[in-house]
Amino acid sequence: MKVVITGGAGFLGQRLARKILEQGSLTDSEGRESAVTSLTLVDVVAANDFGDARVQSVVGDIADTALISEVIGADVDSVFHLAAIVSGQAEADFDLGMRINLDATRALLDACRAHGRRPKFIFTSSVAVFGGKLPDVVQDTTALDPRSSYGVQKAIGELLVNEYSRRGFIDGRVLRLPTISVRPGKPNKAASSFASGIIREPLNGQEAVCPVPPETRLWLLSPRAATVALLKGHALPAQSLQDGRTINLPGLSVSVADMIAALKRVAGEDALRHLRWERDATVERIVGGWPAAWDTRRARALGLEGDEDFDSIVRAYVEDDLPGGLA
Amino acid sequence: MKVVITGGAGFLGQRLARKILEQGSLTDSEGRESAVTSLTLVDVVAANDFGDARVQSVVGDIADTALISEVIGADVDSVFHLAAIVSGQAEADFDLGMRINLDATRALLDACRAHGRRPKFIFTSSVAVFGGKLPDVVQDTTALDPRSSYGVQKAIGELLVNEYSRRGFIDGRVLRLPTISVRPGKPNKAASSFASGIIREPLNGQEAVCPVPPETRLWLLSPRAATVALLKGHALPAQSLQDGRTINLPGLSVSVADMIAALKRVAGEDALRHLRWERDATVERIVGGWPAAWDTRRARALGLEGDEDFDSIVRAYVEDDLPGGLA
Repeated sequence: MKVVITGGAGFLGQRLARKILEQGSLTDSEGRESAVTSLTLVDVVAANDFGDARVQSVVGDIADTALISEVIGADVDSVFHLAAIVSGQAEADFDLGMRINLDATRALLDACRAHGRRPKFIFTSSVAVFGGKLPDVVQDTTALDPRSSYGVQKAIGELLVNEYSRRGFIDGRVLRLPTISVRPGKPNKAASSFASGIIREPLNGQEAVCPVPPETRLWLLSPRAATVALLKGHALPAQSLQDGRTINLPGLSVSVADMIAALKRVAGEDALRHLRWERDATVERIVGGWPAAWDTRRARALGLEGDEDFDSIVRAYVEDDLPGGLA
Repeated sequence: MKVVITGGAGFLGQRLARKILEQGSLTDSEGRESAVTSLTLVDVVAANDFGDARVQSVVGDIADTALISEVIGADVDSVFHLAAIVSGQAEADFDLGMRINLDATRALLDACRAHGRRPKFIFTSSVAVFGGKLPDVVQDTTALDPRSSYGVQKAIGELLVNEYSRRGFIDGRVLRLPTISVRPGKPNKAASSFASGIIREPLNGQEAVCPVPPETRLWLLSPRAATVALLKGHALPAQSLQDGRTINLPGLSVSVADMIAALKRVAGEDALRHLRWERDATVERIVGGWPAAWDTRRARALGLEGDEDFDSIVRAYVEDDLPGGLA
């Protein structure tokens, strides 16, 4: 199988690539385990090539149709489209968000369609497609009502992936990801960046600023569980998706206070002295409009799972991403 | 005020233009009645110019950005964007539907944004944004779930008009129209074309084919009421739309059997001999997936009304559009 990951240099793309290379195969459209012979990682910066002959790293602008034609050849079997401009940046630069989150998604879909081979297309969406007055637990039938440019662009992407699947152009799967925590690396321009930063920075002995009050509830998924969900979402038989291609992935509904309590349990009281509170109205408005939980029955019936509890998420970060482990 | 109507040669565009010229003014963004000094009708065919110096007819492709730049000048106050590829045609020609229903809408929005004057932008959407398992009465919070290319393109248009409004680029209003009946003129490629044809053709002494069973329920609005709703939707103060820019217009929930009974009451038994039944699976699938009614409380609270009953819709067609009246 030939596989493409956009956003392949990102933390999730890299983790997914590593996992695919390790297991060596993916479930093909016939439901058979099939060897992955080629894995192309596309991103604006060079991805880790893993010293593996199966991997090609392509550096370029994912909205560039020439690049897309080069990457999505007639022999591509599966595309994991993870590349995106994050919420805070899409809000700050409307045109950039539209170009990467909407135009690039559509161009990728059209490239997949062009060869008539109906490749699998895994698109990651977000809690940000919801907003306005929400029920405590968002249902599969709750209306899309995004209140940020990022959320609008993701909502349109969802509609397109469903439509291109209905028309038989692709075999699409939309995985709505909870907010990912704990992301490794540096803070980014996502409005939810703090949801990783308030755990990651203290564990690294660095200062973190929390821009929302402790009672703010978040809907979280670890990078480990997100990677497993991407692979399971890819493996699902198309027949299981006749009620719709969009799946709300299970998350954990936790408050910021719960998260900090878990940090204390895992890393000790001392970690908390790196935390500072400074409210940010923009972040509060964007994040506060997202659902704190959604109904996960459909995902669970399809075999998609989230994390056990937030303590295990913190421990997974320490194991996977903290150089040298706990101080 | 300078006003643009896309789809200005269509039956609704022509009717709206006539009404605007008759009343001579529209409510501006300050809530004042302001004289309409220029009315541009854009369409692929020449619109009636009404022998009125205020009217310009522009013929061209509404997805052509040069044409859009010409039409949406810095002095435009209001745009009624009615141009669309109808449902049956958008299903038959995917690329054409995407180009006119999606790309042209976005290009118009970007042209409106370019001048920084936040013009009013009235976008007509459709029952076709809904589908799948629907409640008997669709609520404002029911999820978009289009099952046709037309429905997807309209749903994306709704998201864009809401987003461009939220960002302050336009003052948008999305009016979700029930199926329009009785449309004057010839059958078109809309899946719902029969909803006018089964009344219009018999009244004109011509044969009509009904492709759905008599118990099929439709959600209908007359051209008269649709025109009034477009003008009222334009006049609404922006502050009244803070809960969202999309309004489900009131319609009548009637079965095909009800419609035919009304035809008989208005035009007599004899009219029915022009009706033939011949089921069409594609039309049945598309139309059968649309809601037969939606909650209209918000629209009514904003002063938007539908029709009294279907008999009055048939009589309105006879008065407005039947040359020579009833035989």
